[in-house]
Amino acid sequence: MSRFLCDKYAPLKEYTPGEQPQGMKFIKLNTNESPYPPSENVITAAKEQSELLNLYSDPQAKELKKALAERYGTEYENVFVSNGSDEILEFFFMAFCSDRKVAYPQISYGFYPVYAQLFGADAEEIPLKDDLSIDHNDYVAINKNIVIANPNAPTGICLTKNEIEQIVSSNKDNIVLIDEAYVDFGGESSVELVKKYDNIVVCMTFSKSRSLAGGRLGFCFANEKIIQDLEKIKYSTNPYNVNRMTQACGVEAIRNDGYYMQNAKKIICTREYLIGEYKALGFEITDSKANFIFASHSDISGKELYEELRSHGILVRHFSTPRISNFVRISIGTQEDIQTLVSVTKEILKARRAL
Amino acid sequence: MSRFLCDKYAPLKEYTPGEQPQGMKFIKLNTNESPYPPSENVITAAKEQSELLNLYSDPQAKELKKALAERYGTEYENVFVSNGSDEILEFFFMAFCSDRKVAYPQISYGFYPVYAQLFGADAEEIPLKDDLSIDHNDYVAINKNIVIANPNAPTGICLTKNEIEQIVSSNKDNIVLIDEAYVDFGGESSVELVKKYDNIVVCMTFSKSRSLAGGRLGFCFANEKIIQDLEKIKYSTNPYNVNRMTQACGVEAIRNDGYYMQNAKKIICTREYLIGEYKALGFEITDSKANFIFASHSDISGKELYEELRSHGILVRHFSTPRISNFVRISIGTQEDIQTLVSVTKEILKARRAL
Repeated sequence: MSRFLCDKYAPLKEYTPGEQPQGMKFIKLNTNESPYPPSENVITAAKEQSELLNLYSDPQAKELKKALAERYGTEYENVFVSNGSDEILEFFFMAFCSDRKVAYPQISYGFYPVYAQLFGADAEEIPLKDDLSIDHNDYVAINKNIVIANPNAPTGICLTKNEIEQIVSSNKDNIVLIDEAYVDFGGESSVELVKKYDNIVVCMTFSKSRSLAGGRLGFCFANEKIIQDLEKIKYSTNPYNVNRMTQACGVEAIRNDGYYMQNAKKIICTREYLIGEYKALGFEITDSKANFIFASHSDISGKELYEELRSHGILVRHFSTPRISNFVRISIGTQEDIQTLVSVTKEILKARRAL
Repeated sequence: MSRFLCDKYAPLKEYTPGEQPQGMKFIKLNTNESPYPPSENVITAAKEQSELLNLYSDPQAKELKKALAERYGTEYENVFVSNGSDEILEFFFMAFCSDRKVAYPQISYGFYPVYAQLFGADAEEIPLKDDLSIDHNDYVAINKNIVIANPNAPTGICLTKNEIEQIVSSNKDNIVLIDEAYVDFGGESSVELVKKYDNIVVCMTFSKSRSLAGGRLGFCFANEKIIQDLEKIKYSTNPYNVNRMTQACGVEAIRNDGYYMQNAKKIICTREYLIGEYKALGFEITDSKANFIFASHSDISGKELYEELRSHGILVRHFSTPRISNFVRISIGTQEDIQTLVSVTKEILKARRAL
């Protein structure tokens, strides 16, 4: 820390992303990326735009917003796009939660408390139930802004659209942000509620189901006045926030929706295969509807399993957070990668029992 | 504005970027882009990375930082990269100027006052001299953070490295940010001062001389503790701020430095040609060392010239700011585009005299 940093940031604890080894020496199941490449049209669009990089991107991202509005059945005015969905979360906390109250689950995406602290929000972390699910009743009529990942991370457990609606309709003087990063793997989207309520933001990303983690593209839907506020923050921080290549990749990814939704189905199948195999090995597993599973085993700690898998060339994610420190979060890779994971896990458990 | 936006943002006046028509119907001389395309290697790098977009980018941007450190003769620990250099300015104001004093020229890059307001800085705008140049003595020993664009925008006028050093060495308890977005067109960089002083940030961009405006890539050099602070802000807002394609494009652009510095020389030649022609037509022109000129004419107002050029298919930039409302800022395009500009300008002035 330099002697110039404003005092208020001294206690700030930044987010720690999962490891991103840039070589290919690991089976990488640690950051919930898609194991499938972008579609051919996306690759072609990136190439075409790369020849025009001397020109700024469209700060309004008109083509991309049009494509998203059409795909999700909203109006153009209800769409906002960003440099990854983290930026939407950042703008949300900056615009709506500075010096205000906000509540989110105690165990969820680790970035929410970072944003709350950065922008001085008065944050309440609401505990999960014993089974690690969210009790939606905890959020009904609490008169605070609310942020809920649905499916939740790192558990993968969902709330229904009906439960979300109860939260939104009972907190009319506050905004409810539903972070649907993982919704395409079996969750129920709340995007339709944007038409009915002026106090909901539904946030999504191209990073998971749409194979664009490295391109950085997030989007959200909300009442047009909320979108205007987010635009105001964007034009006050970084107007050209989404580069030219990524905008074009996003448009093509929406055009190739069938390919990506088919990949999501494959990931769901592989997830169910892994859950079956892991349960047979004695794992406890949450009811995940995301592109990852969250698993613990009575014979080996979460930290040890993480380390053993790593030494076998498989990268998964471990959090030392209380209540979940015995779990590992495993992203769903290709069927082949997950078969390797299952074999390696069997070896690890067998060796441990032999000790 | 929605009913949820925090009150403090109600008076916030966001930045207005120059027009970005996405079709090609204009000769576009309004946002200081390079008229030259990226090098072939940059285009190839974008294509290669587009095939790997399902994987996150390197949040540490190691290869890119290494290339920049080598090119500019600093250590790796002195480099920071961002989603366009606006993001560095944003992080700088957030980290170091919240509730602190900061000074910058009254006429300069229009984003400085926006950041100052957004993050609650106590900002002083220091007037330019009568000839629109900066008097560096105004900044000596003022005991405030300082932001100076060098060359300044939209005038293109430079301070010397020696003048910058006087500012830096006399404000040791504050940070001086030198915004060198346009330095490759004839300015004198202060990057060497980073070794000598722990209170200077030298900020640059790939958007101008390196033909990468649409890729969004900024970088800066500073003492490693300042860099650590900027990283802390990055990891508290958007850790994967630079996408995979742009990181690779940046590495290749540094490898192809000769191509880009040659283009900068061509732009300087075209600038001098335009200055000569415009002076012959009776324009008053500031001594610009940037990839734009700043010009006014006694026969036509800045607004009218902007509008007349626009109706002839040439887009330039006009600011309605006091003291400079009679000027237009004209980005240097290809020699051919600038010849067209000169012909059109002659016609406009001739028609006006005939009235």
